[in-house]
Amino acid sequence: MKAIAVEPGAGEPVLVETPRPDPAPGEALVRTLRVGVDGTDHEVIAGHHGNLPDGADRLVLGHEAVGVVEDANGTDLEEGQYVVPTVRRAPNGGNEYFERGEPDMAPEGKYVERGIVGAHGFMAEYFTSPAEYLVPIPERLAPLGFLVEPISITEKALEHAVASRSAFDWEPESAVVLGNGSLGLITLAMFETVLDIDRTYCLGRRDRPHPTIDLIEALGSTYIDSRETPVPEIPDVHEPADLVYEATGHAKHAFETVDALAPNGVGVLLGVPEPWEFEVDGGRLHRELVLHNKALVGTVNSHRGHFESAIDSLSQLPTWFTDDLVTGVYGLEEYQSAFDSDDDVVKTAVEFGGV
Amino acid sequence: MKAIAVEPGAGEPVLVETPRPDPAPGEALVRTLRVGVDGTDHEVIAGHHGNLPDGADRLVLGHEAVGVVEDANGTDLEEGQYVVPTVRRAPNGGNEYFERGEPDMAPEGKYVERGIVGAHGFMAEYFTSPAEYLVPIPERLAPLGFLVEPISITEKALEHAVASRSAFDWEPESAVVLGNGSLGLITLAMFETVLDIDRTYCLGRRDRPHPTIDLIEALGSTYIDSRETPVPEIPDVHEPADLVYEATGHAKHAFETVDALAPNGVGVLLGVPEPWEFEVDGGRLHRELVLHNKALVGTVNSHRGHFESAIDSLSQLPTWFTDDLVTGVYGLEEYQSAFDSDDDVVKTAVEFGGV
Repeated sequence: MKAIAVEPGAGEPVLVETPRPDPAPGEALVRTLRVGVDGTDHEVIAGHHGNLPDGADRLVLGHEAVGVVEDANGTDLEEGQYVVPTVRRAPNGGNEYFERGEPDMAPEGKYVERGIVGAHGFMAEYFTSPAEYLVPIPERLAPLGFLVEPISITEKALEHAVASRSAFDWEPESAVVLGNGSLGLITLAMFETVLDIDRTYCLGRRDRPHPTIDLIEALGSTYIDSRETPVPEIPDVHEPADLVYEATGHAKHAFETVDALAPNGVGVLLGVPEPWEFEVDGGRLHRELVLHNKALVGTVNSHRGHFESAIDSLSQLPTWFTDDLVTGVYGLEEYQSAFDSDDDVVKTAVEFGGV
Repeated sequence: MKAIAVEPGAGEPVLVETPRPDPAPGEALVRTLRVGVDGTDHEVIAGHHGNLPDGADRLVLGHEAVGVVEDANGTDLEEGQYVVPTVRRAPNGGNEYFERGEPDMAPEGKYVERGIVGAHGFMAEYFTSPAEYLVPIPERLAPLGFLVEPISITEKALEHAVASRSAFDWEPESAVVLGNGSLGLITLAMFETVLDIDRTYCLGRRDRPHPTIDLIEALGSTYIDSRETPVPEIPDVHEPADLVYEATGHAKHAFETVDALAPNGVGVLLGVPEPWEFEVDGGRLHRELVLHNKALVGTVNSHRGHFESAIDSLSQLPTWFTDDLVTGVYGLEEYQSAFDSDDDVVKTAVEFGGV
C-alpha cells in the first residue's frame, strides 16, 4: 500500500510503498479516508520534533485521521463504521495513564504518538489500531473527520482552563486566541458557536487582505495585529480577557498573557517553543498572578473523551466556516500540495480514499 | 478604648486611645481577645503595603483576630459567642463579588481590607462587624482563633490548586512549601496532618539549630536549605513535587517552581513581590508547562467558607505544633514584643482580653 513518510534529513515527505498491516487481536483494520496536516507535521518534517519508531529508518506521517473500518477483527466495531483514531499509544505493555484513560497526562517516555513520536502515523491507505482508540463518527461528519483531533486539543485545553476556575463563580465574557493558524481559528469558532463567550479576539501578524482575517471577522470576532497591538496592550486597546488561549508557541506570549488577563482570568498554554532566554519583570508578573487570582495552565494532547466532545463540537461548526477553513484536500497524486505553506493556505488534508 | 495603630512614616506601631465603636444595624459589637501578627502587618508598618481609611491620619492594625460577641445587636449571633472576623469589606455599598460571597475574588478598588487597605483593623479592645463576616468558633479553639485567618489563606490556595487539577485523576504524593515563615509552617502542618500527602518538604534559608527547622522535622517533613539546594534542583536532590506552595514572595520562585514540579503538578503562588526584572529561559519554561500539563495558580485572601474550613483544620493540628509555632502572646503593656522580628520569633499575637 502507499504511505507518506519522512526520512531523516530529507526535509520533505515522500510517497513510499509499505506492506498493508494485519490487525493483531483487539485491533481493527481501518481504511484511511483523509488525514489532516498541521504545524506538528511540518516540525516533524523539518526534524525539529518527534522521532522514528525503534529500528525504523523512516516515519509514516499523520496524526489527524478519519477512516472506515475494513476489518473489525472480532472487536466491538462494525465494518463500514467511520472512525477517528486517537494519537497516543502505550509503549512496552502499558502504564497507569493508559489504564485510567488519560494518555494525555502521561509524561515523556510513557507514550508514543502515532505520526510524531516513535510510532508510524495514519498517512497510509490502511492502518490498524486497538479498537479502544478508534472513536466512531457519524457518516455525514466523516469528510471533516480530520478536524476532530485538533478540535479535541481545544476540548482538553478548555476543560482544564474551566476546571482551574471552578472554585469560584467564573463566567467568561471575553476571550483572546493568540495565533491565527488553523488551531487558533478552530478555537475561535468554538468560542463563538459552541461556547457562549460574548466578545472574542484573535491575534496574528498578517496584512490585510488575508483569508484568515476574513474568517475571524466573519465569525464576529475582532482581529488584532500584534505588530500594532502587542499582547500586554490588549486590555488598554480592547479589553482585559477572561480567557487567553496561547497557540503560537512564541515563548514571550506565555508571560505577556498574564498582562492580557482580566482579574480571575486564566491563560491556557498550548504552543511548544524552543529554549529562549529573555528578560521579564518577574516581580510584577508574580504579584499580578497573586493579587488578581490569575492562572496559567499548560496542556498537551487529548484523550478519548475529548475526541467524543470534539465530534459534537464539529457538528456545531457552521458549514461556511469549515468550507473556508479547509483550503485544500489533495489526492495521493498531488499529496505534496497538502504540505505547501503558502501564505493563503489555512488547513489542508491528504485524501487516501473517497468518503 | 485602647488600640494599636500605625501612623504614616512612624515605622513602628503605637498604642492609641480611640472611641469604642457603636454597632450599626446588622453589625455586632465584638470584644477582642487576641490578634495575630504576620508579615503583612510588618509591610503595613514599614509603609510598603496598604493605605489609610479615607480621611484618617492613622490605621488601626490587625487582620487575624478572635473575639467574643459583646452586643449581638439584633443579629443572629449570641452574646458570649466566640467569633473570628473575615478581612475584606465592600466599599461604597457593595458589589457583585460580595453579593455572591466571594470577596476574595474582588479586584483592586472593589474591596477594603480591615487593618490593611482603607479600613481599620481589629487591634483594639472592641470592634464592630456585619454579622455575616463573623464566623463562630468553638470556645476550646478560641485561644488559637488568631490562626484561623492564615489557615483560611491556605484553605483557599489548596482549593484553587486542587480545582486546577480536577479535570484528571490527581493524587499528590509530594509537596514542597517554599518559605518557613509562620504561613509556610502552618501549611506544612496541614499537608502532614489535615491532607494526606506522603512526603513533604519545606524550603528556607536559615542555619541550624533553628526552631522552625525543629518544627519542620518534628512534623516528619524534610528541611531544604535554599543556599545548598536552589528550587530548580529540588527534583534531582529530593524528588519532583506534585504541589509547590510559594509563600516567600521571592519573585524568582514563581518561575523556578515550574522546574520543581512533577508532570501534571501545580504551583500555587501566594507571595506578593515588588517589581524585579531578571532573565528567564522563557522558552524552556513555557515548553515545560505545556508538555507536562503543569499549572501556576495565583491566589490571595479567602472567603467565609475558607474560614469555616480553617476552623476545622485548626482543630486537627496537634497541640505540640501550635504550642511550638506560637512563640509569644503579649498583653497590651508589652504589645511591642509582638512586633519583634528576632530570628527565633515564629508567630506572635497581642492579647486584648483573657479568653
